[in-house]
Amino acid sequence: MSQESTLANLGESESLRRTIGRLIQGEYTLVGPGDDAAVVRAPDSRYVVTTDTMIEVHDFRLDWSTGFDLGFKAIASNVADVAAMGAKPTALVVAIALPGTTDISWLEAFADGLNAAITELAPGAEVVGGDIARSEQVFISVTAHGDLEGREPVLRSGAKPGDVLAVAGTLGRAAAGLSILQSGIADVISAFDDLVGIQLRPQPPISAGVSASLAGATSMLDISDGLARDAHRIAKASGVSIEINGKDLQGFEATLEQAAMRLGVHSSDWVRFGGEDHSLLATFPADAVIPREFKPIGQVVTQTDNLVTLDGIELQQNGWDSIRG
Amino acid sequence: MSQESTLANLGESESLRRTIGRLIQGEYTLVGPGDDAAVVRAPDSRYVVTTDTMIEVHDFRLDWSTGFDLGFKAIASNVADVAAMGAKPTALVVAIALPGTTDISWLEAFADGLNAAITELAPGAEVVGGDIARSEQVFISVTAHGDLEGREPVLRSGAKPGDVLAVAGTLGRAAAGLSILQSGIADVISAFDDLVGIQLRPQPPISAGVSASLAGATSMLDISDGLARDAHRIAKASGVSIEINGKDLQGFEATLEQAAMRLGVHSSDWVRFGGEDHSLLATFPADAVIPREFKPIGQVVTQTDNLVTLDGIELQQNGWDSIRG
Repeated sequence: MSQESTLANLGESESLRRTIGRLIQGEYTLVGPGDDAAVVRAPDSRYVVTTDTMIEVHDFRLDWSTGFDLGFKAIASNVADVAAMGAKPTALVVAIALPGTTDISWLEAFADGLNAAITELAPGAEVVGGDIARSEQVFISVTAHGDLEGREPVLRSGAKPGDVLAVAGTLGRAAAGLSILQSGIADVISAFDDLVGIQLRPQPPISAGVSASLAGATSMLDISDGLARDAHRIAKASGVSIEINGKDLQGFEATLEQAAMRLGVHSSDWVRFGGEDHSLLATFPADAVIPREFKPIGQVVTQTDNLVTLDGIELQQNGWDSIRG
Repeated sequence: MSQESTLANLGESESLRRTIGRLIQGEYTLVGPGDDAAVVRAPDSRYVVTTDTMIEVHDFRLDWSTGFDLGFKAIASNVADVAAMGAKPTALVVAIALPGTTDISWLEAFADGLNAAITELAPGAEVVGGDIARSEQVFISVTAHGDLEGREPVLRSGAKPGDVLAVAGTLGRAAAGLSILQSGIADVISAFDDLVGIQLRPQPPISAGVSASLAGATSMLDISDGLARDAHRIAKASGVSIEINGKDLQGFEATLEQAAMRLGVHSSDWVRFGGEDHSLLATFPADAVIPREFKPIGQVVTQTDNLVTLDGIELQQNGWDSIRG
């Protein structure tokens, strides 16, 4: 790492040029990066838009995550919110702030991570604009857009008694990966590098969002703060209660059992309360053909005092709060 | 300020609820804040999108700017980029990260500042989503959207020899305000509170962006980094040179003369190199009827070695670089 290739030395224009020059192009962009703003197609005259922020110390550590990892995660966590509306991701803008001493190679790896996540999770989408600024604490803010392709958005508020509750994607893996990293035990980290990988580069089932919408999903969200907390959100927004069946979670727990034993914790805590897998939680009418990506884990009932129960017992709203921690 | 009303104490949901509850509604929103994403109308099946970040220490100081000021400035600087495309601002998402010890009243004032800027500068627009997170350094990241209403976007690259160069809005006022704040001299700050006010709460001529587009502007941008640097951007993108006439800048300098004398500086430096007024710089064909908000200050000529000249002498590209400072 030479002095010459730091961001402070290269300046904003050259840093932007080198980063933007690496980005892949998408199918929805009419005017891409480089002007005051981009211009993006909205084929059905509407667009979905969501924003999410990642902050050093609170959301990631630079000794755990590479630039590539953070680029990947920034895209994955945001396109999951687009998918949770039943939309197809189309365009993103990315703002990043970092110390002037950062080497340009870190930023180039970040851009490669953006590309990799788009290619794997949201083909056809594109980073259409961005901002690079200087800060002491690293800060990444992404705004993602999506195309509903003429369908109605799937909100959190449409769940009805009698609906089936189902999840697409993994539960507890990202939380397990975090616990493993926090343990600091090198051979545990090495043995469970698949779980660590999900924490660093989540793999949400993006196309399942459109599948759910087409199948008639009545409500949906992405599980960013844990099954318990996010199930509460659907129950509250829809005015219903949600019953989760413990036996349907056993498969998720089984895949985490070995790691849990090594760390002396319960795998069920990761599955119930762990966030950041960005899996999709949705409800479907009882007579719907549930898409193959989704696994039923419970049902929607008339609202009672307990918004979410697991095998009949109240499931507390434990989970991640982005301000309290 | 009581312990009970800090963000750390209230948590994310309650902090979001109190902030979102204050926001005014707009004309383009189909699904507003509160779900995984918002849904916004794009009447002509396209939208303009731009993002910009403000960072404590580098872009603002909390002892100079109130929460209200920062909310106002975050909107103003972003809708100026939308206007610079010839579009009407429609929807915004706002991400803010700040210490958990911050009192909720600060965040409420920030929301009020967002509202005030929208009401004054971009009526009909709305904050459709956001994110509140915890950090040690305050970060504000805004993504703004706009509606081209069927028109072609006005890019930086369309200026042609023979075009007239014109500016809508003020030049050098925000920079003068910054110099005054930096002087730390209380009675100067008080005497020139109008200039300080423009630094803290810029007043870009947003509706002039649409006027310029309707009048046939061939290129446009908002002056965020100073007339010299931003004129260079048009010249470079368009493959032309730009001649600025010193006599046409005298009016801008005259209004800053008293403040400049008090600080012992040249008002012309503020006018030529000062950023953050977010005024609109545009080029028009010689036979266009230039909208009344715009004042001609020069002309476009065939490209020479000097991309921008002032009275025939090269104007260096001095100005603000968001990474180098």
